[in-house]
Formats: sequence, structure tokens, C-alpha cells
Amino acid sequence: MTLYKAPLDDQRFALFDVLGAEAVLTQLQAGEGHTRDLLDAVLEEAGKLSEQVLAPTNAPGDEEGCHYDKATRTVTTPKGFKEAFRQFADGGWAGLTMDEAFGGQALPSVMGIATTEMFQSGNLSWSLYPLLSEGACHALEIHGTDEQKHTYLKPIVAGRWTGTMCLTEPQAGSDLGLLKTRAEPGENGSYTITGTKIFISAGEHDLAENIIHLVLARLPDAPAGSRGISMFIVPKFTLKDGQLGERNNVYAGAIEHKMGIRGSATCVMNFDGAEGYLIGQPHKGLAAMFTMMNAARLSVGVQGLALSERALQNSLHYARERLQSRSLSGPKFPDKPADNLLVQPDVRRMLLTQRAFVEGSRMLVLYAALQTDIEARGGDEATRRKASELLAFLIPIAKGLVTELAQECTKEALQVYGGHGFIVENGVEQFVRDARIITLYEGTTGIQAADLLGRKILQLKGVGLQHFLAEIGAFCKQHAGDETLRAYLGPLGTLAKEWGELTLKLAQRTQANPEELGAAANDYLYYSGYITLAYFWARAAAATAGSSQQPSFKQAKRDTAAFYFARILPRTQMHKAAIEAGVETLPAMA
Amino acid sequence: MTLYKAPLDDQRFALFDVLGAEAVLTQLQAGEGHTRDLLDAVLEEAGKLSEQVLAPTNAPGDEEGCHYDKATRTVTTPKGFKEAFRQFADGGWAGLTMDEAFGGQALPSVMGIATTEMFQSGNLSWSLYPLLSEGACHALEIHGTDEQKHTYLKPIVAGRWTGTMCLTEPQAGSDLGLLKTRAEPGENGSYTITGTKIFISAGEHDLAENIIHLVLARLPDAPAGSRGISMFIVPKFTLKDGQLGERNNVYAGAIEHKMGIRGSATCVMNFDGAEGYLIGQPHKGLAAMFTMMNAARLSVGVQGLALSERALQNSLHYARERLQSRSLSGPKFPDKPADNLLVQPDVRRMLLTQRAFVEGSRMLVLYAALQTDIEARGGDEATRRKASELLAFLIPIAKGLVTELAQECTKEALQVYGGHGFIVENGVEQFVRDARIITLYEGTTGIQAADLLGRKILQLKGVGLQHFLAEIGAFCKQHAGDETLRAYLGPLGTLAKEWGELTLKLAQRTQANPEELGAAANDYLYYSGYITLAYFWARAAAATAGSSQQPSFKQAKRDTAAFYFARILPRTQMHKAAIEAGVETLPAMA
Repeated sequence: MTLYKAPLDDQRFALFDVLGAEAVLTQLQAGEGHTRDLLDAVLEEAGKLSEQVLAPTNAPGDEEGCHYDKATRTVTTPKGFKEAFRQFADGGWAGLTMDEAFGGQALPSVMGIATTEMFQSGNLSWSLYPLLSEGACHALEIHGTDEQKHTYLKPIVAGRWTGTMCLTEPQAGSDLGLLKTRAEPGENGSYTITGTKIFISAGEHDLAENIIHLVLARLPDAPAGSRGISMFIVPKFTLKDGQLGERNNVYAGAIEHKMGIRGSATCVMNFDGAEGYLIGQPHKGLAAMFTMMNAARLSVGVQGLALSERALQNSLHYARERLQSRSLSGPKFPDKPADNLLVQPDVRRMLLTQRAFVEGSRMLVLYAALQTDIEARGGDEATRRKASELLAFLIPIAKGLVTELAQECTKEALQVYGGHGFIVENGVEQFVRDARIITLYEGTTGIQAADLLGRKILQLKGVGLQHFLAEIGAFCKQHAGDETLRAYLGPLGTLAKEWGELTLKLAQRTQANPEELGAAANDYLYYSGYITLAYFWARAAAATAGSSQQPSFKQAKRDTAAFYFARILPRTQMHKAAIEAGVETLPAMA
Repeated sequence: MTLYKAPLDDQRFALFDVLGAEAVLTQLQAGEGHTRDLLDAVLEEAGKLSEQVLAPTNAPGDEEGCHYDKATRTVTTPKGFKEAFRQFADGGWAGLTMDEAFGGQALPSVMGIATTEMFQSGNLSWSLYPLLSEGACHALEIHGTDEQKHTYLKPIVAGRWTGTMCLTEPQAGSDLGLLKTRAEPGENGSYTITGTKIFISAGEHDLAENIIHLVLARLPDAPAGSRGISMFIVPKFTLKDGQLGERNNVYAGAIEHKMGIRGSATCVMNFDGAEGYLIGQPHKGLAAMFTMMNAARLSVGVQGLALSERALQNSLHYARERLQSRSLSGPKFPDKPADNLLVQPDVRRMLLTQRAFVEGSRMLVLYAALQTDIEARGGDEATRRKASELLAFLIPIAKGLVTELAQECTKEALQVYGGHGFIVENGVEQFVRDARIITLYEGTTGIQAADLLGRKILQLKGVGLQHFLAEIGAFCKQHAGDETLRAYLGPLGTLAKEWGELTLKLAQRTQANPEELGAAANDYLYYSGYITLAYFWARAAAATAGSSQQPSFKQAKRDTAAFYFARILPRTQMHKAAIEAGVETLPAMA
């Protein structure tokens, strides 16, 4: 059984002390919005649900897994999942950020991300059921007709139904242009959907009355490739007079046997002439799917944070309690048979690495989420546009880097336990297994890296990076006289300058040879990510001055910032060397 | 089902072309030794056993796991393990490197390591049963009386019995000084052993008639701490007139439920007044255990190589077969629906990273194993001593670095598969899970790092490093005129110099404050390890000139060497920065 305590202090520090979210949100809501008291209460309630209801289902859910019944083609989720989903729905969490017109709470996106982090820490497998629903809600909200919204959105927001996103097929993963599922025009404007989708999270389960699948398929006249894909609504039960009608011909053919997130039903979905309805424009399904991509990818980035947070809490606890060996400079607990692990500098290195990544990632994802709110409700076009460009630039970093750092964090957390970390009952190995999916789904790290360098930097001429560098520049200028920040502002300024120059040189090289993009992208993602986190760590150090948190909390922040700059940030230089090495160091392989 | 093909070409290249093992061994054996033909035949036969018998049991063994029967307190190993062990014993592999006097084949250690790699690639879980026996054999050979050797060593060498090493207790892991198991003098010079040991690999199973436990315990008059530990032989069945007699009072109380190596029985062993016999001197058990440490740690390093090799083979195969997306510079397989993954530079980066680590690690562990042979049979005292010092220095690198690199290699292998890597049936996720134990057992990476910096560098005044730096210097001098090696010799020479200087400065700092040792050790291990591999990659590039391998093999070697120097070796500088950051960046945590 592993611990979990909602990290409310750190969320508040990041949101309010570092990012000034209260002022930003007040401005966006034009005075009629949410008070700080309400925001605090939302965080607290989400924390309670995560700690008390979700966290205890995590390890048992992994052990039990989901069960697929071949005869009925139905899936049973692990014990406790259904009841947790009921409490989640009853608490209004399923529609937290959705429009009030559909029964939502209309809270800002940044609160959605902050609460999602806690739910995911509580039980990542479980959290995928509402997460997929949220994705479906966004699709319906943006692309659905009024009737479609009324029919499908409201019950999902209410937590009575759930949703899915059906993209992947056996031969079409990262390359959706290869997909084959067909949609033939049927009666009354409906379509008949035929094909097989794989890796469908929440494709079939027992948490809700109905499941609304959003399915990518090809119309008969569709052009080949990614420009011939349309999106369809395919409900598990079709509706008759507003009530659940017939069982549609879409069934789970199997569930996957996976390394981790074993409480999440990952289904093979067979559409055997299922009834579906076009949503959005014909042949524009992929573009429609992409409008939800930012939210989906940010949420997966948050999964990295969520798993790392819980892994850190447990490894820190273990290091505090486990007595083994003595400090190098003489006993620190002479009355005990041995000192605890915390006296070992190398154990502190493992814990501080986790802390630097966890708290740094938290600032990054909350900052990105705030841009979502500004993009949606900013007072003027220029403000909204800038937020949108910043967000587009930061998404591949928030997804790509944070999920990769979660591999390192969960690995280090397990390492702190020594051999005991390898034992299932101690719980930390589950975090390692669960974490392994997040660099794969919603676009692999390679896809994120290509999106960052190929699209956000090269195609969009680095406009998001320019905003971000300007922000770093302004921050450095604002604090230029602050002696306590000198150790951070110097390296940050130098690296910001280097980042811009390296990007320009790289852009020139990729123009000469497009293969250079693929050769540099992964290292460019890490390079950019480490500088991005350095900026947030410098802001955190600066924010301790005005924060009302406890002195020990603030000292730990400054210590972690110093650790990050001294021992993590030098990683940028190895990535720079790899970027500069060029594609000739990656010759053809047979 | 995953592939496995014994990497005979690369083993031969490393052994004979790079390391000149044939000449070294011929000299050691003074003319009466093994011919190249025999050595080749041994590798081939081990390869066949690994490919045909062991490899197919790997995934099924993971799925089935070991079964513990509470009523009889016995363990059943997965299907196929017993038959594989029989074939292994019948082939004479159990005593491959053991003295002919005890029924062994007396082959050099380096052949033991080369064949062990293949067995471990075939099935790591299974390979632990003979590995633990090998450890017990070494202990008996070095510390046993003639009678003990005759009684216990011969049946293990013959593969009729197996052995274990019983060290860890719940409160005593890295700190064996805390162990509590008691040994009271009994009848006829025997002892009564009482206590609980945990994490005992092969503690109970169905592969052999008898199990010989080597147990660390305290005599009644033992001083506290690590200087009061003695070693005892505790057989599962005691002997009467040379035949198996009574069942001894040592039983498995449970087996662990683990993240990986699920076919290996990791037992809780209860000694309830079991009959045991002192081996070696009273109170000198820990020292006796340490005499086997080099061999045990090197074997675990080889496990990293073995898992990474098989993971690489499978991810390369997948990248070749999987069609998805198009090359950045236009279609490379225009007649197919998409190009294969190999056209993506970022996929090649993941594969080359694995290849650089796998083949580099292979040269390192085989080089270390050759030092074992020279240490044992070198012609003069100075030669033996130098080999011993080099070996002692390289062991924490071979164990610490290679097992850590295996985390990265297996992770990258899985990443190449995309979402399919997360699915159990595809097999690659097992390598990730299995690999997670190897940075923990036989001394965690932290323990290896402390051994390297604390003992091998500081206590022993860096004598092993000096030998190694001299060897690098000689190599650079020898090849100074070779234009094809210029790109390697420059950076290698610079780094060798830096390594020496950094070590001296670090030694001074740790004298002023012993905590600096703990703050620097982990990064010093990586820093040293990456330069060590650079030396072997430079040797590999040099060795292609005189090698009779295929041109494509030699080109791939040179490509991988170039990749390593350009894209991996810059990692040294981030570790150098972390080393220089000092203990003040790792402040106390509560």
C-alpha cells in the first residue's frame, strides 16, 4: 500500500505565488468569476476524493485488472472503480470545466489540470475513463451540431455516459493516414461504420449506461491518406425518443494484456456495420481531432507529473524510515541501529532529482493550462493569439519532456527502495510500469519532438519560442538587481540566448536537408525542456520572497532551484552537442 | 514471442579482433591450452542451447512464474526449466570454468562470461539458478576444506545439486553488519542455524536433488557489526554415508511476487535450528563473501548486456518490419503503403544508442573477464597483480554502468515499438521489467559508485585507474599516425587527462569532507564509465582494420563508434559539472 497526500501547498504555491493565477483568472472572468476561496475549496475537495476514494483503489485495481467476458463481450472494471466513478460524477467533477449550458461548472482549464493531476495520482488507470470522456466532450462541443451537443454532451457532462476516441488501427498508429475503417451512407443521414480499432481506452466497461465513440473513418469518396478521414459519433446504444434504444453493432473483441495501467480497459473495438453520425465536415476528421490534441497531450503530460509526485512521496517516506548504514561523516542517529537513508548524499540526489522534476513540471503544466484559459477568454485578439501561440509551442514540451522525466523519476523512486522496490507489495514498481505508457500514447516522444521542431519551430517560424524567450528576458530584466537570484539569472540568460541561436542554425540546416529535422528533434525537445524548467525554477526561487508558505517550504524551494541549476541544467550541453552532430552520425541501417 | 540469435560474430570480434584473447589465453595456458577452434565451438554450442532451449522458455516462464506450495513448502519452476537445466548439466556447462579435479571443464573465465551472456539472453530468470550455483562453487573452492569440496562441490559442478548465497535479512540489506541470524555450536563440530533470510534466489526449487545454502550468521561470541559474521554450509538434505539423508530444518516460507524475473524463485528462507558447518574462519564470513564479489558483480553486469542485446535484436527487427509514415526526404519504399521505421533518423538514434551500449558493454565485460584469467594464471606476480588491480577498478563500472545502461537500452527498445511495446504478448516489456532488478541486487548502483570512488580510487590510491589510463595512453600513442582514428584519439586523450585531474581534485575535496564522496560518487561512476566505453569503441574502430569480419559488419562498427563519440560521449561533461557542484547542492532533507 502506497501513500498519497494531495500536494495542495505546492499546487497553491505554483498557481498563486509563481504564476499569479488569481489575478489572471480574475481579469479573464471580468469580475464575475471565482474567488480564491472557491478555487482553494475545489483543490481541497479534489484532494480528498483522490486521497480517500481513488488512491486506495490503485494497487488492488492493478492486481485485479479488467475482466473481459467473451460470451457477452463486456468488460468488468476492478472493484471500487464503479463506486469511485459514481462519487466523481455526483461531485460534479465530470463537467468541471464544461459550459454551464450543458450542466458543467465552467471552471477555468487551469483548475481542470490541477484537479486532474490529483485524480491521476490517486489512480491513473481509473482516471483514464473520465479523461477520455473529457476528450469526447471537447470534440462534441467544438464540432457537434446543437442537437448533437444536446443529445450526447449533457449525459457525459453529468457522468451518466462516457466517451472514447477511436483512432488507432493495427496498421495505422502514428500514421493515421493509413487507416481503413469505412463509413457508408445509410438511412436518415446516418452512416454504417465498419472496421477494427485497437488500443481504445475505455472502449467498453461497466461504469456508465452508454458509451459514445468518436470514430475516425473514411467515406466512400474519400481521398487517400490523412485528407480523407471523417469523424463519426457511434453510440454503444442508439437513442429512441431520448431514451436508450437498441444495442449498436460495436463491440469489444478483446482487451489488451498490458505492462501497466491494468485497471484501464484497453479494447479492440469491432465496428460491424455500426450506426454512426457524421460530426464536423466530411474529410476533415483529422483536423477536428487535432483541435482536441492540445488538451489531450497536456493531460498526458500531467500524468507524468501525477505518477512522479506519488512515487516521490513514497520514496521520500521510505528514505526517512529505512535504517541502513551510517552517514559518511559519523552516526547521525547514534541511538538507533543505523542511520536513515536520508543521511546519504546519493539518496538525496535521487530525491532532489525527483523533486526538481515534479515541482518544475507542475509549474510548466499549470502555466500551459493558464494559456488555455487566456486563449479562450482573453480580453483582446492579440492576447488570445499570443496565448494560443505560446500554448502550441509548450504542448510538445509539456507532453514530451514531462512524460520522459516521469520515466526517470519513477525509476529513481524505485531505486531508493533498493531490492524492496522490486517487490509488488511495496507498490512503487507499479508507478514504473504505469509510467511506461505515457511516452507512447497521444503521440510518442518522437512525435512530440517532430511537432516541436518541425511544426512549432520551423513551420510556424518559432513564434511561440519568441514569445517565451521574450518572457524569459523580461523576467531576467525585472529581477536583475536581486542578489539572491544572481546564480539563476546569469545561466538562464545565457541559455536563452544560446537557445535562440541554436534554433536559427538548426533551421538553416534543416532547410538544406530535411533529414536533419529527424536527427535533431529529440535532443532539441530535451534541450528546450530543460531550459523551460530552468525558467520556472528561477521564477519559483523569485516567488519565495513574497510567498506566505512556511519558511521550511520556501527553503526547500530555494534548495531545489539551486540543485536544478547546478546538477540538472548542464544536461542541456550534451543535447546541444547531439543536435550539432547532425544526421551524418545516424547513418542508414539495414 | 521475441527473437534471439546468439551474437557470435560480435563476440568473436570483441574477443579475438579487439581484445586479442587468443594470444592472451595461449600464453596463460603455456601451450597446453585451448585452441581457437575449441573456443569457437564452445561459443557455438552455448549459442545453440540459448537459442533453441532457453529462449523459448523466457516469455512463458514469465507468464507462469514460480509456484509455492504452502503445505509442502516447495517451489515448482515454470514449464521447461527443469528440462533445460538437465540439458545444461548434461552438456557440462555447470562446471565450465571449474577445476577438472572436481569434474569441471577448466575453461578460462572469459569463456564463462561469453557463454553466460548467451544463457542470460535466452532466459535471465532461468540463468539465475546456475549463476547462484557458480557463486557457491567459488566460495567452496576458495574457502572449503578438501572434504567440503569433495562433498559439496562435485555434485554442484555435475549439475545434480545447486547452491545459494544467503545474505540479506529484512533489516540488513546493503548494510550486512546489521544481520541477526545466529549459529550455535552443536554436535560433532556442526552448528545450529536460526534466522530468516530474504531475497534468496534459487532458495527452493525443483531443478536439483539437493540445495547447498551458504549462509552468513553470527557465532555466540561474535563482535557486533560486519566483523562478527561467519559463513556456514547448510544443505537442504544432510548427508549420510555420502547419500542424501534427512531433510534439514531450512524451508522456504514464501516466494516474492516481483516486477520481473518471475521465473526465478526469490525465497524467504527460514532456518529453524538447521544443521550447518562452518566454512572458512570464524568471524571472517563477510571477507570470504567479498572474495566472490568480483565474479558475482561481473555476472550481473553481463545480465545488463544480455537483456539489452535481446531487446536490441527485437527492436531492430520491429523497426525493419513496421511500415508507418514516410521518410522526411521522400518515400523510400514507394511500392509499399508506408516506409519502414528505419528511415526515421530518430528511430536510428534509439537503435544506435542501444548498439553502442550493447557492443561497448560486451568489450568491457570480456576485457574484465580476461583480467580474471590473467589474475589467476598470469606468468609472474607483477602481471597477476596488475590484472587484479585493473579488475578491482573495473568491476564497479562493469556492474554499475552496464546495468544502468540496460535500463536505457530496454526503455529505448520498447519505445521503438510505440504503443505495441506496452502489450505483454509483444515481449519487449518483459525485458524492461526483468532489467529493473539488476541495478539493485549484488549491490545497488549507489553501492557500486561508493565502491569505485571510495575504495578503488581513494583507499587504493587509484592504482587501477592509473593502469587503465596508462593503457589508454599507450593505445593512443600506438595509433597516433592513423588518420582513420584521429576523430577518436583526440577526444579520448583529452578526456583521459581530464579524468586523472578531476580524480585528484575530487580526492582532495573528499579528504576535507567525507560527505563529498557520497555527493560525487554516482556521477563519477557514469563519467568514468562513458570514458571507459569510449576507449573500447576506439579500440573497436582500430580493430576493424585487421578483422576478417564482413565489410558491412566492419562499417557498422565504425558507424557506431562515430555515433558514440559524437552523441554519447558529451554526457561526460554533465556528470563532470555535477561532480564539481559538490555536496552543498544536496542539502539535508527531513
